[in-house]
Amino acid sequence: MENKDIVITSRIRLARNLKNYKFPIKMNQEEAQNIIKEVNSAINRVNLNYKLIYMHELSNLQKSALIENHLISPALAEKNHTAAFLLSPDKKVSIMLNEEDHVRIQTIDKGMSLKECWNLSDKIDDVIEETVDYAFDHELGYVTSCPTNIGTGMRASVMIHLPALSITNQVEKLLYGVSQIGVAVRGVYGEGTKSLGHLYQISNQGTLGASEETLIEKITQVTDQIVEKEEKTREFLKKKNYDELEDEFYRAYGLLTNARRMTTEEAMRLISLVKLGKDMEMIKAADNIDLYNLMTKIQPSNLSSLMGKELLPNEMDNERAEIIRSEFLK
Amino acid sequence: MENKDIVITSRIRLARNLKNYKFPIKMNQEEAQNIIKEVNSAINRVNLNYKLIYMHELSNLQKSALIENHLISPALAEKNHTAAFLLSPDKKVSIMLNEEDHVRIQTIDKGMSLKECWNLSDKIDDVIEETVDYAFDHELGYVTSCPTNIGTGMRASVMIHLPALSITNQVEKLLYGVSQIGVAVRGVYGEGTKSLGHLYQISNQGTLGASEETLIEKITQVTDQIVEKEEKTREFLKKKNYDELEDEFYRAYGLLTNARRMTTEEAMRLISLVKLGKDMEMIKAADNIDLYNLMTKIQPSNLSSLMGKELLPNEMDNERAEIIRSEFLK
Repeated sequence: MENKDIVITSRIRLARNLKNYKFPIKMNQEEAQNIIKEVNSAINRVNLNYKLIYMHELSNLQKSALIENHLISPALAEKNHTAAFLLSPDKKVSIMLNEEDHVRIQTIDKGMSLKECWNLSDKIDDVIEETVDYAFDHELGYVTSCPTNIGTGMRASVMIHLPALSITNQVEKLLYGVSQIGVAVRGVYGEGTKSLGHLYQISNQGTLGASEETLIEKITQVTDQIVEKEEKTREFLKKKNYDELEDEFYRAYGLLTNARRMTTEEAMRLISLVKLGKDMEMIKAADNIDLYNLMTKIQPSNLSSLMGKELLPNEMDNERAEIIRSEFLK
Repeated sequence: MENKDIVITSRIRLARNLKNYKFPIKMNQEEAQNIIKEVNSAINRVNLNYKLIYMHELSNLQKSALIENHLISPALAEKNHTAAFLLSPDKKVSIMLNEEDHVRIQTIDKGMSLKECWNLSDKIDDVIEETVDYAFDHELGYVTSCPTNIGTGMRASVMIHLPALSITNQVEKLLYGVSQIGVAVRGVYGEGTKSLGHLYQISNQGTLGASEETLIEKITQVTDQIVEKEEKTREFLKKKNYDELEDEFYRAYGLLTNARRMTTEEAMRLISLVKLGKDMEMIKAADNIDLYNLMTKIQPSNLSSLMGKELLPNEMDNERAEIIRSEFLK
């Protein structure tokens, strides 16, 4: 229930490599093309309507926007003719080709849906494997370019919204605590541990020596614990600081619906506050808006994409404020 | 035209004393009562429907609210049975009795209206003089308790809104400049020269050796010059900082229409900004609101008066925010 508001998206990523091919870092252009063709054919054989997009077909702006939407990685964006990705019509599945590994199947869905994402990834994985030979070692599992991904080749991650823990300075401690048990926490936007919009990503650090189900179970449990802490902190704040919080939420709303220019940082902070106020049922506002979606939309490259051109920083802040206003007031 | 937006109110005050009576500071209670009766009778003789209110009839809260509305002075509020004031039904005329002088006739009106105020004050003065003997010296003019008021006994003042000059830190210099030519400038709300809401009062320092008309002419000229400076600074800001200003105006509006608690200081600053935005035709908001009136309404004692009880500072900030919101959103 409330969990749905705090856990924003779930993601499963599978790293796979093809037998008989060198790892992307060592292979030549012809081999790269062949891999792309092989996987594309495997997917097209079952008519999923996935779209194949090569890196060299995209402008830098388009690439950055895809990164902001978590559909490709920065490492893939740096490549050109040798790399591509397959995108499902609903954008829930993205298969990166010749990034660090030959194949990276990524499935994203809303809320706590790691199991659903795993099931879907597993199916796509099977479809590819019907015509493609994966490099698999019966001792080690799936062979990957980087040893940290060896084994299941799986990374399970959830994106969570932790404004109450952030405001009360509890995130650092949390971050340290879960790193001790092989779970990584990092900010989704912004550099280092400084997270914009109080969004964090929780994921497994190791992929070896445990089944996919066990890894998913672990991330789910850790997430549940963090969500519980966030919820308790929200309850605490609601009891102790109701008036201050309510005021802060409405002020954030007032600025979002009126400002004429706004930086990404400020927008993320204010949208996060309004989301917290909405989730805590403390403000009547923004009822019909997907606030996480808005957070994504106002990132620099998405914003430029939306406007159809590279924007100057100044124009960007103006456009951002306008988009936010029209979203809230529509 | 724009002048009307910058000059908020004009005020004329006449200091008079009755022959055959000691100054208020030296007289006894019986003499004080007689003066109040004499002036009250003089005014009632022409049936102006003025209301006589004694200081001892008022609570401290009511007194503070009257001071905030500029209807009585702090000095009058400190007295009790010996002091009173007569208030016209439209609240444009207030006659303080036994403040520093026996009689202080005060006339307030909107915009630049010193001449109109003077004409009205002069009429009231004549009405009183028909039955009351004023202390008048053919050399010095009207005799007053404090020598600074001797002569015409008149103080002419205008309240002006100088946000652009304040923002650009030009007020201090201005203040010094006009003090050199016998004109005083001070903040209307707040202590010392720190003015809340960028509201200032310009008035003559001397009352001797010039006719009422000359004094009014002088204050009018100085006001015109200050207004011109304010207007030029507005034009300059509009040209150089349009985007920043527009953003600031709308942010102020966003906070005023959404905050759940607000101090007097913040409210005055934000309302002043919205007024500036409206006067500069840079924001479409607050069209039907008398913003100066709102500034007065949210002063601590007026606020408590409106709520019908002394409020705690915390309650005050909540009520203030609520009144502002309902005013803007009605």
